[in-house]
Amino acid sequence: MKGNLTIVGLGPGPSSQITQEVEFALMQATDIVGYGPYVARAATADAVLHASDNRVELERAHHALDLAAAGRRVVVASSGDPGVFAMAAAVFEALEHRPADHGLDIHVLPGVTAMLAAAARVGAPLGHDFCAINLSDNLKPWALIEKRLRLAAEADFAMAFYNPRSAARPHQFAAALDILRDVCGVARFIVFARAVGSAEERIEVSTLGAATAEMADMRTLVILGSSTTRRAGRFLYTPRSAP
Amino acid sequence: MKGNLTIVGLGPGPSSQITQEVEFALMQATDIVGYGPYVARAATADAVLHASDNRVELERAHHALDLAAAGRRVVVASSGDPGVFAMAAAVFEALEHRPADHGLDIHVLPGVTAMLAAAARVGAPLGHDFCAINLSDNLKPWALIEKRLRLAAEADFAMAFYNPRSAARPHQFAAALDILRDVCGVARFIVFARAVGSAEERIEVSTLGAATAEMADMRTLVILGSSTTRRAGRFLYTPRSAP
Repeated sequence: MKGNLTIVGLGPGPSSQITQEVEFALMQATDIVGYGPYVARAATADAVLHASDNRVELERAHHALDLAAAGRRVVVASSGDPGVFAMAAAVFEALEHRPADHGLDIHVLPGVTAMLAAAARVGAPLGHDFCAINLSDNLKPWALIEKRLRLAAEADFAMAFYNPRSAARPHQFAAALDILRDVCGVARFIVFARAVGSAEERIEVSTLGAATAEMADMRTLVILGSSTTRRAGRFLYTPRSAP
Repeated sequence: MKGNLTIVGLGPGPSSQITQEVEFALMQATDIVGYGPYVARAATADAVLHASDNRVELERAHHALDLAAAGRRVVVASSGDPGVFAMAAAVFEALEHRPADHGLDIHVLPGVTAMLAAAARVGAPLGHDFCAINLSDNLKPWALIEKRLRLAAEADFAMAFYNPRSAARPHQFAAALDILRDVCGVARFIVFARAVGSAEERIEVSTLGAATAEMADMRTLVILGSSTTRRAGRFLYTPRSAP
């Protein structure tokens, strides 16, 4: 039997934001691999579920490749889009060191990543050039994050921040806000979008002057406007044109 | 009758990459407004279709708001995600100048934007921090684009370029490649993803040293790797960790 591996994005939360091709891949799967809460969302009647803890991405990727190499039809389930701070990069990192498996049938199916769902809730804050930065320093030095924040602010990008704040390093998001205030000023719009699409969704539109680190946790997607981001009624948008 | 306006993303092309909530919005619509090819993709049996030319985004937005204000259930259809270089920002720009319509029932439904679909085709080149830049200078000065390219390269972002090249300004994409070669060097990976998801799809993985402006047209989404982007078998990915 010839196995395969499909790395899918479940979108930000609601099943109505899953694409049809991802649903189809799940229906075909013999095995669904992923972080526990995502496997629970992806579960089908037929598939064997392989739920694992957070922060074991590489082990999980090897496990999925093992299953596919053994002939199973494996789906690796990510929240949002699998290519944005999610499982696709981990699977290819594992694959790189397994040359015997380079011929495996592997596909990535995109999804709606959190920043797009959060942006849609408030209007169109990412309507002009923007960047996406993972604020977690689990896998990169904090100095690199600070450098990127300064350069992105100087480039006047709108910005989306993933994983803004954890219990283990609560001070770092405060430091990030200080840098952004320094370069962008206190009037800049900032959006805290928590648990978008879920029953616990909470969206807060604020400014850098009023923002505090406590307004974010690990379930929050933060969007910072560019210098041109403005209000239109109850919405926030970044115009298509720049001066 | 109370009208409403829903700005939806159809995804990059195939109907299998549309979310369920967007399909549902289309089924409810009395009117579908958009650029001709997108309206054709979104068409339903019941809706009145309002197809318009490219580059009339603001007029189209006012037309959609007029229809909603008159009590129609209007869908504005964008390709990809409506908030990324698409119609959502145009609708809010029009809305800003129509205070009488600020109470209208308006929603944005996200979609799979082109860079996520293109990235999925080659692996996970946006697996670490990245930015998205519209290379068209229709609505912003070229000098700002050059400045953003240099700062983004200095920040070592992976980059996705929308609208890289038009017949009207073929020299500009060549100038962009020169800037990127200057900062990133010739070995940097670059991906040309044309018409992703369609029958004419063509994906080319190259390097800045070998890349020429002719490898892109207006249907191409270009992805530049960061300094850490590497191969895993036939795939390209940007590792989750950075030194």
